[in-house]
Amino acid sequence: MSAPRAAARERGPGPGPEPEPAGSTQTSHRLLAYSDALLSIIATVMILPVAHTKIHPDQKLGESVQQLLLAKIAVYLMTFLIVTVAWAAHVRLFQVIEHIDDVLALLNLACMMIITFLPYTFSLMASFPGVPFGIFLFSVCAVVIGLIQAVIVAYGFYHPHLLNQQIQESENQNFYKRHILKIILRGPILCFLAAIFSFFFIPLSYVLLGLVIIFPHLSRLITWCKNKILGRRGEEEEPHSLETFTFYLSEPLSKERVEAFSDGVYAIVATLLILDICEDNVPDPREVEEKFHGSLLEALSEYGPNYLAYFGSFVTIGLLWFVHHSLFLYVTKATRLMGLLNILSLAFIGGLPLAYQLTSEFAEKSHNEIEAIQVSCVITFFASIFQFAIWTTALLNEEETLHAFARYGGKEHAFMFAKLALYPCVSLGAFFLTCLLSEFSTAIFHLMQIVIPFAFLALRIFVRISLTAIKSVMSLSRRKVVLLEEEEACLSPNETLS
Amino acid sequence: MSAPRAAARERGPGPGPEPEPAGSTQTSHRLLAYSDALLSIIATVMILPVAHTKIHPDQKLGESVQQLLLAKIAVYLMTFLIVTVAWAAHVRLFQVIEHIDDVLALLNLACMMIITFLPYTFSLMASFPGVPFGIFLFSVCAVVIGLIQAVIVAYGFYHPHLLNQQIQESENQNFYKRHILKIILRGPILCFLAAIFSFFFIPLSYVLLGLVIIFPHLSRLITWCKNKILGRRGEEEEPHSLETFTFYLSEPLSKERVEAFSDGVYAIVATLLILDICEDNVPDPREVEEKFHGSLLEALSEYGPNYLAYFGSFVTIGLLWFVHHSLFLYVTKATRLMGLLNILSLAFIGGLPLAYQLTSEFAEKSHNEIEAIQVSCVITFFASIFQFAIWTTALLNEEETLHAFARYGGKEHAFMFAKLALYPCVSLGAFFLTCLLSEFSTAIFHLMQIVIPFAFLALRIFVRISLTAIKSVMSLSRRKVVLLEEEEACLSPNETLS
Repeated sequence: MSAPRAAARERGPGPGPEPEPAGSTQTSHRLLAYSDALLSIIATVMILPVAHTKIHPDQKLGESVQQLLLAKIAVYLMTFLIVTVAWAAHVRLFQVIEHIDDVLALLNLACMMIITFLPYTFSLMASFPGVPFGIFLFSVCAVVIGLIQAVIVAYGFYHPHLLNQQIQESENQNFYKRHILKIILRGPILCFLAAIFSFFFIPLSYVLLGLVIIFPHLSRLITWCKNKILGRRGEEEEPHSLETFTFYLSEPLSKERVEAFSDGVYAIVATLLILDICEDNVPDPREVEEKFHGSLLEALSEYGPNYLAYFGSFVTIGLLWFVHHSLFLYVTKATRLMGLLNILSLAFIGGLPLAYQLTSEFAEKSHNEIEAIQVSCVITFFASIFQFAIWTTALLNEEETLHAFARYGGKEHAFMFAKLALYPCVSLGAFFLTCLLSEFSTAIFHLMQIVIPFAFLALRIFVRISLTAIKSVMSLSRRKVVLLEEEEACLSPNETLS
Repeated sequence: MSAPRAAARERGPGPGPEPEPAGSTQTSHRLLAYSDALLSIIATVMILPVAHTKIHPDQKLGESVQQLLLAKIAVYLMTFLIVTVAWAAHVRLFQVIEHIDDVLALLNLACMMIITFLPYTFSLMASFPGVPFGIFLFSVCAVVIGLIQAVIVAYGFYHPHLLNQQIQESENQNFYKRHILKIILRGPILCFLAAIFSFFFIPLSYVLLGLVIIFPHLSRLITWCKNKILGRRGEEEEPHSLETFTFYLSEPLSKERVEAFSDGVYAIVATLLILDICEDNVPDPREVEEKFHGSLLEALSEYGPNYLAYFGSFVTIGLLWFVHHSLFLYVTKATRLMGLLNILSLAFIGGLPLAYQLTSEFAEKSHNEIEAIQVSCVITFFASIFQFAIWTTALLNEEETLHAFARYGGKEHAFMFAKLALYPCVSLGAFFLTCLLSEFSTAIFHLMQIVIPFAFLALRIFVRISLTAIKSVMSLSRRKVVLLEEEEACLSPNETLS
């Protein structure tokens, strides 16, 4: 899917081999990159209100989490979920529409505007769970987004030179149009019902909104069951099957856009940290004068753990990005399942500012040191284990999804495995170490963060050594086998002749 | 410059036509995209402390600006300036090094980590202008960044297959290496001196740090003057001239990266707004109960102007992005001068959250309504006028920098001109209207924000009509001329025969 788009981007809007209507038709590359940036930032930025929740250091973290953080974490997770669903729909939409013009660019911006407004509706819903207005506002936004997308599809099919090659050349354009519109409009209709029911019976609205996400999978399940009972194979029923809009987990997902979205999340998470540092850790000039006799250095040394936590978090995010980058260098085609796992990984990455806030604010100051560090370990573990799951998924179908030299059994495979396994192992190790040696938990945690970059640098050498070791052991044992066979052969020369 | 990199990206790390050392050498595309995202966010995010400065509504904005905002605006502008300088150095560096491996990726991440720490040093400098520690910390960071870049260059030249084609094939590799290292290390040396002098005489440190930015231009000026006096032409002196690292304003700058950096700034500015909305404009449940008798709708209607300001700002940013996008579709090659103008435009774009805060907080509530709206108009005007300047610069050398069909005189040219001129004209108009009709200033401002998207939609039709009108007028006048000539010819038929 990415190859033709990349080719189109290279061609640019200039007078290529095929005479395009210059100026009005444009490549969609940059529009998509901008949309990815917007959506990834919106998905992640709602962690800030969570991280900024002030908890008194003497309070037990356990109670505070339950009372204060829960609503905000719910807002963050819901925003992340819905925005990624919107992102996936956007990817799918622009896999059908490959070129844009000014009207589509403006329609897309309008769509983005409504999406960026969604977090606010969640904030209202979380603050006023019993009032229908929050859910009503959200549903209306979702309806508007769906309608704009439908208009984009209709516009695209009205100007067929904007569509992708497969559809443009096909004879079933009308069938595709109906099929795609049906899938896109399903969401807004459910949301419209949710908006109406929000004034009568709020739980039903929630159920309807939940259906929007589950519905495609539900309908596939029903079709599958029906086919199982009737004893037919489903795939033969669709003669004009499209590559996208299928809801199969193996449906291709633009690898370029998965990377762009992930980059946005990693970048915003890495930079949110310094914002906290700048706002909270600049001492008050008057206080410096009174408390530290004008010595800035002494005043700053109070913030020592914060700096350590900042650099530690940045290193963690940077290295997780590095692993992600290495992984997707080897992936040739992304599927929906990989996209799903990637989004789960990113949801935990988005939680890292919370981990930073916990380690910097509570560590060595309150009773919650161990809990804070354990939360950080858990977040890091899940973020990295889902990256590992992407790799495993890619391996399951390695002929299609992986580069030849990274497939099972090669040296690069072993190296990639080591890269991906490093973070899950280390974070799990740190977690259990803090359980055992609870007094040194902060020291263990920071030691882990400092050692890991060097581990990555030395990883290639380490893998090479261990591979050589394995090989020599293998060859030794093989030589033994060979020697044994030779001995056997010497003992029974008549058999070798036969 | 972008063509070979784009080609390399297409090839991917896979077994291409030339056998690369698989896995260890990678394309740098995604690393650069991630760096662009990080740097653009860091450059822009420091506007948040400026925008969040609370000013009492009854205070006059004039005084408050002077007392409260000035230091924070200085931090924002310095951060923006320094980060864009670091970004330009990064672009230049990775125009020389076109492929990366794991070591370079990790070194680059280390470099990014130090750059993201710079805003904090500025915050310290702004809060404690008389204490040497802030400037010392900044200088040390700059030295470390320069040293990491030098290590990257040395590593690149040690593994020549990572370099770009031009240098890789050249015989003067050692000359290039010395030349590039000399330019890169110039900054750290000046910063090192600044770090030392910060403890003795702070103003000298500031002068030295200022030199880092001015030095290249200064040295060019001196060479130019020397050559003028001695009567030589400077260009003939450099036999092994590189395309990059020249400090000429026409030096090529990767267009791809200019776009990526700009996208990052536009995206983060657009999304910072909703963060404010989510944190400030969710009413307190208790207050709703007491003040509005439980009616959420009534409580929210208080925030009406804020929503209007949010959508207005988002539309402004989105459309300025749209203009930027249209502009760079027509540009084939970006130069340093265009990059500089782009950065000036982006610096004002970064100021838009401040404009939003001003319009939403002060409008209709205090005495500062007109000032707030005028500040917004001025920011919008400068952001758009620098976009216009990019276009003008591109036109000056249109054979090299513009697509054939967008050059002077064509229909697309007229259309682009109209697109670029719309925002400067409208914001200037709104500014003067608010001066004249100061009572309706808020209404004028919001009307402007609502009307503009439709103006963009109708622009193509409008330009077409006016072009047709101009053409018909031209052809009428030409026909008159022709008729006159014919009359003349009729009057003197003997002359036409000669």
